[in-house]
Formats: sequence, C-alpha cells, structure tokens
Amino acid sequence: MRMRTCVSSMAAGSSMEWLKSVKGVILDMCGVLYDSGEGGGQAIHGSIEAVKRLMDSGLIVRFCTNETQNTREKFVQKLRAMGFDISVSHVFSPAPALVRILRERRLRPHLLVHDDLMPEFDDVDTSSPNCVVIGDAADKFSYQNLNEAFRVLIGLEKPLLFSLGQGRYYKETDGLKLDVGVFMKALEYACDVQAEVVGKPSADFFQTVLNDMSLQPHEAVMIGDDLLNDVGGAQRCGMKGIQVRTGKYRPSDEKHPSVRADGYVDDLAAATDAILTNH
Amino acid sequence: MRMRTCVSSMAAGSSMEWLKSVKGVILDMCGVLYDSGEGGGQAIHGSIEAVKRLMDSGLIVRFCTNETQNTREKFVQKLRAMGFDISVSHVFSPAPALVRILRERRLRPHLLVHDDLMPEFDDVDTSSPNCVVIGDAADKFSYQNLNEAFRVLIGLEKPLLFSLGQGRYYKETDGLKLDVGVFMKALEYACDVQAEVVGKPSADFFQTVLNDMSLQPHEAVMIGDDLLNDVGGAQRCGMKGIQVRTGKYRPSDEKHPSVRADGYVDDLAAATDAILTNH
Repeated sequence: MRMRTCVSSMAAGSSMEWLKSVKGVILDMCGVLYDSGEGGGQAIHGSIEAVKRLMDSGLIVRFCTNETQNTREKFVQKLRAMGFDISVSHVFSPAPALVRILRERRLRPHLLVHDDLMPEFDDVDTSSPNCVVIGDAADKFSYQNLNEAFRVLIGLEKPLLFSLGQGRYYKETDGLKLDVGVFMKALEYACDVQAEVVGKPSADFFQTVLNDMSLQPHEAVMIGDDLLNDVGGAQRCGMKGIQVRTGKYRPSDEKHPSVRADGYVDDLAAATDAILTNH
Repeated sequence: MRMRTCVSSMAAGSSMEWLKSVKGVILDMCGVLYDSGEGGGQAIHGSIEAVKRLMDSGLIVRFCTNETQNTREKFVQKLRAMGFDISVSHVFSPAPALVRILRERRLRPHLLVHDDLMPEFDDVDTSSPNCVVIGDAADKFSYQNLNEAFRVLIGLEKPLLFSLGQGRYYKETDGLKLDVGVFMKALEYACDVQAEVVGKPSADFFQTVLNDMSLQPHEAVMIGDDLLNDVGGAQRCGMKGIQVRTGKYRPSDEKHPSVRADGYVDDLAAATDAILTNH
C-alpha cells in the first residue's frame, strides 16, 4: 500500500530516474527515523526496516544530525534502543565536527551548550577563551549566561562565534521550543558579527560526510524532513535532496519560493522503495 | 575653559550657524544629563546648569529617552533627586507612547518587560494577547520567558511584535549588559517577522515630541550621545542632530560611514554654549 502511494506521488511529481546514479544515502535522523518526545521519542513507522533494507542493498549509508543536546554516543544508544542498527562511526553530528575545527585552528572556546553535550569537549582547552561556541543549550540560555558569552565575544579583538546549527525552533511534546539559531542571531546583532555555522546546512559539514563515504556529491542523496537545512543544504553541495512528509514537514514546503526538493515522498519507507526500485 | 574648548572644536569642525533657526531642543537623558551606575548614577559635570540655561533662554526644551527599566514617574524622580528641574510631562519615553498605540489599535499585549516598568501597563488589557511587547527586561529574559513570548507570537495569525527600543548593549558599573534589541532580533528570526520599534530612532516617536513642542522638524535640534539612535534618528525626521562626547560616545563615531552629526561637542554644557551663542 505504501509502495503504491509512493509510485503514485512519484508519477504526480517529477520522475526520480536520477536515482540510478546514486551510490550513497545520507539520512537525517529526527523526523526521518524517529519523532522526538517523552522518553526520547519513538521510531517512525517503517523506518527501522527501511534503514536495514538500504544497508543490505550495498549502498553506502551515513547519518547526519544537528542534535546537540546529547553526546553522539548517548544519542546513538537511544536510537539503538528503539531498534535501529546504527554504529557511532556512521553518525555525523556538529559537536565532533567542531572539536576538529577547534583543534585545527588552535581555538579555545567559551562554551554555552547543553550540560549533556559537555563530555564532547572533555579534551578541549577552554582556558583564556578566544572564541564562543553555542549549541542548543535550552534552559541554559539564561540572560546571565547569554550576557557572559556576549562579554567574552565583545572582549575579543576579532569576535569569533560558532553556532552548532541555526534552527529557529523545534517541537517537543509540551510545545514549540526556541532553537540555537535564535540565540545565534541575538549574539550576531549584539557584536555585529556573523557566526560560523557548524552542522547542517554548512557545506563543510556535508563534505565531511561525503569524504567518509568516498563519494562525489552527485553520487549521494540526502533524505530529510527539513527543506532548508537538509534538502537545500545538500543541493548547494551538488547532492540531490529528497524531502519526507514526516517530522517538521509542512505542505507549504512543496511550494517554497527558492528551494525545491528533487523528490517528495511520504516517509523513509517510501523513499527507500523509490531508491531500491530505481537502483 | 569649557567655553574655549567648545569654540575651538567648533572652529575645527563645521560651523553651527544653522543654530540660529532653532526654536526647540530635545535632550537625550542617559549619557547626556547623567551617567548610569550604582545608586542610580550621577549628573554629568555642568549638565544641571546647562538644562537650566536652556530653559531660561526661552527655547522649548523636551527630554527623550529609551529608558524602560522604570516608569516615567520613577525615572524623573531619580533625575530630580540629582538636581535636574524636570517635569514628567516634558519627558518622552517608549512605554507611554506604546500604551497610546495599543489603545488606538485595540491591541492586547503579552508583556515581557522589566518588573519596575509594569505599572505603566496597569490600565492595559492583557487578556487573550494579540501582540507581544518586549522592553529591556534584563534578568527576566530567561529561556522560559522568551519561549513563552515566542509561543504567543507564533500562535498569532499575523505575528505582531513591538520592541521598546533596539539597543544592542549598554554599560553598567559591573560591565556591559545585553539590551532589548538583541532579544528583538532573536524573536524576529524565530517568527520571521520584523518588529515595530517604539522609542528612538522611530520617526513616529520623534514626531510625537515635535507635536508636543508645536515645532516643525527643521526648527528643532536633538542632542544625544548615541550617533545612530539619537543623531541619525533625528536627522531622518528632518531635525538637526548634535553628538556630545560623553556617555556611550566613541571617537570612531566621528568617522562613521553613513551618519554624520551636524555638530560634535564635548558635553551638554558645550552644546548649550554653542546654542545660546548662535541663538
């Protein structure tokens, strides 16, 4: 039945013959594999099986998330508990990518991130900070903490701000929550700087995943529920992008004035059907 | 000695002959009349006498502030205690201006403002809010309060956000503090809206002061320490603008790429000398 729906929406939309040349698949996680919520959330119907089918098909599969409320290890543990057979080394999240950047550029950050993300920075020198890093700190975004980050930033000869993602808001069981991008804009305005975004939709971030897959951009497809950060970001790197109608998807996404996905499908199961049919 | 300094800087800078046609003076308060700090701050040397001389000269004098951490009454009380002979009806601040707008447009605000400003809104209906108002709420800008304001805003059919000023930061005795504009930018990004700014540099706000003075813009001069919000804002309304080298003034202001004051003077006493000499 889902197969039929998928074929029908493919017929109605653009053909996905381009899938023939695809050798690798990058999957967004929240809103594609699972819905967040109480107790960590739950798998989206059919997605556990879909991930398994993609992996068994011989395609190279990687996972790409902007999750910054947890270490990558804890996050993967949660997904494994839901039934997903995922290994930590195949998951790309902003914090480990930022730690590499900090090391390469010999930067010492002032951190305004979620307490549960702190272990990612265990080996990072945070003395005499020469940059500021913000993640989705949620309740830790107090006036005092934000002001402290601002004072570090404005006190630098050349203020340098890193933001782990640039999301506006997300949905939790008790309603909408402000995301890190909102506080990035606040600090950008305060100090008249532009933040360096680490995570989707940064081209560097997608490129790291492609490097790990040993693929050229045109050989990979990104599947996500976020039209701008997943699909648009991947397309700017030369990849194809498919949007699923789960998670934060809204019908208005299909009429977006500047970003158009290479395919719209009902969910990851339908995306997998389309990929394996055309492969 | 100050007189000589003033004449000397006038000679070095542009001539201020245009002051001949000026019938009214609008004074910024913090940074021009007084410096904020512990115990409410202290008068800037010579400013109490300068205000008196301007008033005694027959010029129409009004005061214009973006202060939103206090009611107008409490604020004027503080200035009077410092020695300024100022009456409440001559002081224009954002909150009373906003209350008039809310009444005219029949709006019911969700308020995220300083506790000490709340009495300004005693007569305002805040049930079933159809807009959001933010002021310099300082410590009240917690994640929870900001998220609450965001949820009200995003829940409106047409999100409407008012900001009492748009300052980036200000200086207190214990260091720099984030101002309301930073949180305005945060909510603007979260909801993809543009805030209506009430207070300087809003043209409507300056026009209210001019109406009260019964003057045309070219008949009035604004004196302030903030190049963009005081001088630039007044100039965009057709007024002249003088910047004083006190308060938040920085030498780099005199080389600003887009805003140039009609005169730069050391302080309010020097500005008064120039006005009364040319008048």
